[in-house]
Amino acid sequence: MNKITLIGEKMKLRRSERMVVISNYLINHPYELTSLNTFAEKYESAKSSISEDIVIIKRAFEEIEIGTIETITGAGGGVIFSPSISDAEAKTIVQGLCDQLSESNRILPGGYIYLSDLLSTPSILNNIGRIIAKSFKDQQIDAVMTVATKGVPLANAVANVLNVPFVIVRRDLKITEGSTVSVNYVSGSSGDRIEKMFLSKRSLKAGSRVLIVDDFLKGGGTITGMISLLSEFDSELAGVAVFADNAQANRDYLGYKSLLKVTNIDVKANTIDVEIGNIFD
Amino acid sequence: MNKITLIGEKMKLRRSERMVVISNYLINHPYELTSLNTFAEKYESAKSSISEDIVIIKRAFEEIEIGTIETITGAGGGVIFSPSISDAEAKTIVQGLCDQLSESNRILPGGYIYLSDLLSTPSILNNIGRIIAKSFKDQQIDAVMTVATKGVPLANAVANVLNVPFVIVRRDLKITEGSTVSVNYVSGSSGDRIEKMFLSKRSLKAGSRVLIVDDFLKGGGTITGMISLLSEFDSELAGVAVFADNAQANRDYLGYKSLLKVTNIDVKANTIDVEIGNIFD
Repeated sequence: MNKITLIGEKMKLRRSERMVVISNYLINHPYELTSLNTFAEKYESAKSSISEDIVIIKRAFEEIEIGTIETITGAGGGVIFSPSISDAEAKTIVQGLCDQLSESNRILPGGYIYLSDLLSTPSILNNIGRIIAKSFKDQQIDAVMTVATKGVPLANAVANVLNVPFVIVRRDLKITEGSTVSVNYVSGSSGDRIEKMFLSKRSLKAGSRVLIVDDFLKGGGTITGMISLLSEFDSELAGVAVFADNAQANRDYLGYKSLLKVTNIDVKANTIDVEIGNIFD
Repeated sequence: MNKITLIGEKMKLRRSERMVVISNYLINHPYELTSLNTFAEKYESAKSSISEDIVIIKRAFEEIEIGTIETITGAGGGVIFSPSISDAEAKTIVQGLCDQLSESNRILPGGYIYLSDLLSTPSILNNIGRIIAKSFKDQQIDAVMTVATKGVPLANAVANVLNVPFVIVRRDLKITEGSTVSVNYVSGSSGDRIEKMFLSKRSLKAGSRVLIVDDFLKGGGTITGMISLLSEFDSELAGVAVFADNAQANRDYLGYKSLLKVTNIDVKANTIDVEIGNIFD
């Protein structure tokens, strides 16, 4: 499926047009190796011209820090684009989210915070995806895992940047998932309720390295549950990332990264205190 | 949030680099008006040079049919990128999905079809998003609506291309959604069960034009339920799109578009017959 834009008619383009087209292709195919011959044939150009194009695109990508292009030489060689985001841009974005999360009208009865608007805005999700993906750039990641429903757009966003599939753990059992594996997990911050979570057997290949993401980390039971699911699938934890956590101290064993940390919710005074999490540490 | 990449340091780029950078910006900000002055200031170039860049980018985008760039003249003017996909590419993609959906190992007990792998692969989702968005290009769409859980990645993908938020209707009631509005809907193709679906009150603005998307259309009860939710939110239906439907004839009143049509599932013979749906009609 991924190589689809290069199938079909060949076309002769001017250099400047060709660069727009090739850079667009690379951005849409992160972490995929594409040989220079593929571009040369498609755009009826000499491989040496394509090679020069790549040098310019590489420089432009590095100038605006949207990612790096690696050139692999030799017979099986080509170019690979790895998306990134500049530290300055990432910090501006997270600070903006911090301000949005602090809005007092997000407080719901019981001291919950309304997040759904942030986690259903594509431009915000794309930015979060880039920031989380960058933070795990040294890890081999084969899949992103989350739990339904709130985590799904986040997992989707991170998986999109990493160009890997995402898997959705469910709290209920659906016929359309086929055979599932279930584990017990501790639900609620008081740790007094045991529930089950389910993952479709065919959704995760054995031996996968998995990044777990979720919207809000409270007691940590859901994430501990997902980690125990990983071993049922003979898979390994690559890391844990959450959009926000509630600044409790006793979950460091999860080794998670958070974009935001909610340090206090005062329902009476109608205030939420939010800080930047440990994602940049 | 959206204009973030243009905030911060200015930089002087060569023309060819500038074109890579500007085209990347436009692709990441679909349906947003950006003034040429913004680019001129950021990249320390004359507005006339930026204007020439845009002409070349426009031609390149049109050559590979990834979208169009509209130039709006005058004081409040600028450029707007509208993503698209060529008919040939769209058809190749849907044919590929058709082949994948026909694989006999997707049949689950009871004649259900396993779809989760397709709907959790970012490259597939991005393509589906582009195809559905193109199919409703003449409609004003303010939000994309779906029902949890399977529809979420699809809604996310379409909303991403349209650069609008998506809203998630739930079959259960969650504390973290705040106040909700509920409607009854008919569940199951036999039409013998009435259930409730819920939408957070603050998730959809009154007066929105909404595109409803879902993974698999069976009886149509879920979609009819979502349509009745729209009127509770003083909003309007812009269209209905599904990944696949099961080729029943009695749902034409929904006026939906489908990528794929499952014409027969033979559990004994272990075969699934799939055709291209009405999305290209």
